[in-house]
Amino acid sequence: MTIDRVAIIGLGLIGGSIGLAAGKMAPHIATTGWDADPDVRARAAERGLVGTICETASDAVANADFVVLCVPVGAMEEAARAISASLKPGAIVSDVGSSKASVAAALAKALPDATVIPAHPVAGTEKSGPEAGFAELFRHRWCIVTPPENAPKEAVADLAAFWESLGAKVEIMDAAHHDLVLAVTSHIPHLIAYTIVGTASDLEDVTRGEVIKYSAGGFRDFTRIAASNPVMWRDVFLSNRDAVLEVLGRFTEDLTALQRAIRNGDGDTLHDLFDRTRTIRRSIIEEGQDDARPDFGRSDH
Amino acid sequence: MTIDRVAIIGLGLIGGSIGLAAGKMAPHIATTGWDADPDVRARAAERGLVGTICETASDAVANADFVVLCVPVGAMEEAARAISASLKPGAIVSDVGSSKASVAAALAKALPDATVIPAHPVAGTEKSGPEAGFAELFRHRWCIVTPPENAPKEAVADLAAFWESLGAKVEIMDAAHHDLVLAVTSHIPHLIAYTIVGTASDLEDVTRGEVIKYSAGGFRDFTRIAASNPVMWRDVFLSNRDAVLEVLGRFTEDLTALQRAIRNGDGDTLHDLFDRTRTIRRSIIEEGQDDARPDFGRSDH
Repeated sequence: MTIDRVAIIGLGLIGGSIGLAAGKMAPHIATTGWDADPDVRARAAERGLVGTICETASDAVANADFVVLCVPVGAMEEAARAISASLKPGAIVSDVGSSKASVAAALAKALPDATVIPAHPVAGTEKSGPEAGFAELFRHRWCIVTPPENAPKEAVADLAAFWESLGAKVEIMDAAHHDLVLAVTSHIPHLIAYTIVGTASDLEDVTRGEVIKYSAGGFRDFTRIAASNPVMWRDVFLSNRDAVLEVLGRFTEDLTALQRAIRNGDGDTLHDLFDRTRTIRRSIIEEGQDDARPDFGRSDH
Repeated sequence: MTIDRVAIIGLGLIGGSIGLAAGKMAPHIATTGWDADPDVRARAAERGLVGTICETASDAVANADFVVLCVPVGAMEEAARAISASLKPGAIVSDVGSSKASVAAALAKALPDATVIPAHPVAGTEKSGPEAGFAELFRHRWCIVTPPENAPKEAVADLAAFWESLGAKVEIMDAAHHDLVLAVTSHIPHLIAYTIVGTASDLEDVTRGEVIKYSAGGFRDFTRIAASNPVMWRDVFLSNRDAVLEVLGRFTEDLTALQRAIRNGDGDTLHDLFDRTRTIRRSIIEEGQDDARPDFGRSDH
């Protein structure tokens, strides 16, 4: 089997981008879509995010050989229940959630008889909703697939081929390791960004206007991440609690050591770290995971 | 007096950008430049960063009516001493350092008879060195001027007019308040970015390769800032210690509260913050301090 008919449940940034990417890069695939919000369905139809917008989740998945759940992690189980009675036998069910162990458990519980293979495309922007998606979102990005032990190999291969057809690179990983890796590369960075933006908004001695005016000193970079979808991110932290707390503990230790270095005027400790952290940026650029131009190439009109 | 002859001491990102901006936007100004590193002087000459590259700091400032010290904060006093004997009477001496109270004290000490008016253009990129500068760096960015109490008003006005001629907007502030504001909008963001990049590099269970591959989940944004000049940033933290430690204390309190919310599964606290932080991004974009396009408009080839 190869994937010919794809149902997309949830038509925000990621679901919409999957629809647009399939339409552009894998036009032999027929796409259906559904979103719990009728307004989002209407806007998705306007933008042509999928071939057919359906009125119910059941309708959307009825003929699909691949269903991808693109809803916040905390809404996965309910979305899975909504499609369970209408799934075609042998259909693959996957998702795009940012944490994987809890989603795998939720989907296995809601769909005990289906072929469930969770996945996570590591891509996104700070925008959300049906206007936010674009066909190139997954190009040169990694999609991590976390198959349960009993997953049929052909189904895993079909899923991988689907993501590759959208321009992504695929890696297979177990769910627990995924959750630890993403805690480092995504969840803690978001938590820290949300925190510092909150801290800066609440100070008595520095006004909000000052924070905004002088944000080009570094702060503005954090505000981009801290503008991400609040429901999605709330669910990420609740669902990946253990890994997030573990990495957060390490971060806090390291921050405390730097705090001490500053207090003690220990310039060598500061310089050693600041020098070391440059090399990782270089590697990220060499591996095509970021824009090499200064300031991400952004144009400050 | 208006500023007609400018000497730039230190020809890295900021000094080089001043030279290029003056050449482009205020071509009536004659610029001289010097850097302690002969190799930097040669590369600066190649790029034409200033009108005349001089062999000594004394030569560079001899005829200048405005001298701007563009060296790391910890090197300001030495740079000031190097020019003290050659300054033209009435010349204004300023700088571009990221912390102001300690620089003001160092310059006042080294140049007791000169007209010293410290300043800080809130602009930059993660690149450094004589190849990094560009003429538009200061456009639409704020330059904070922190005049000592006895500073002649005309000199402050001349300095402000100079920065405005490079496209900057000027704000007058006292040095202590500057240091607190910049601790929030620049220094703590850099410290946090350096820390998380260090933490991610040092984990046992997540490889460096994994951190790089999956950095598009948010981490890569932090690596840009953490690629900034190590000497400059070491000096910033050492010279603005009190304000940095104060804001860091607030950040740590807020982070601890979020940690507790995650541990307790308190989704409302998380959602409330994540929702609130979106609005500040909007204001930053409305005030022209960042690129409105998703992902800063960066192109992932």
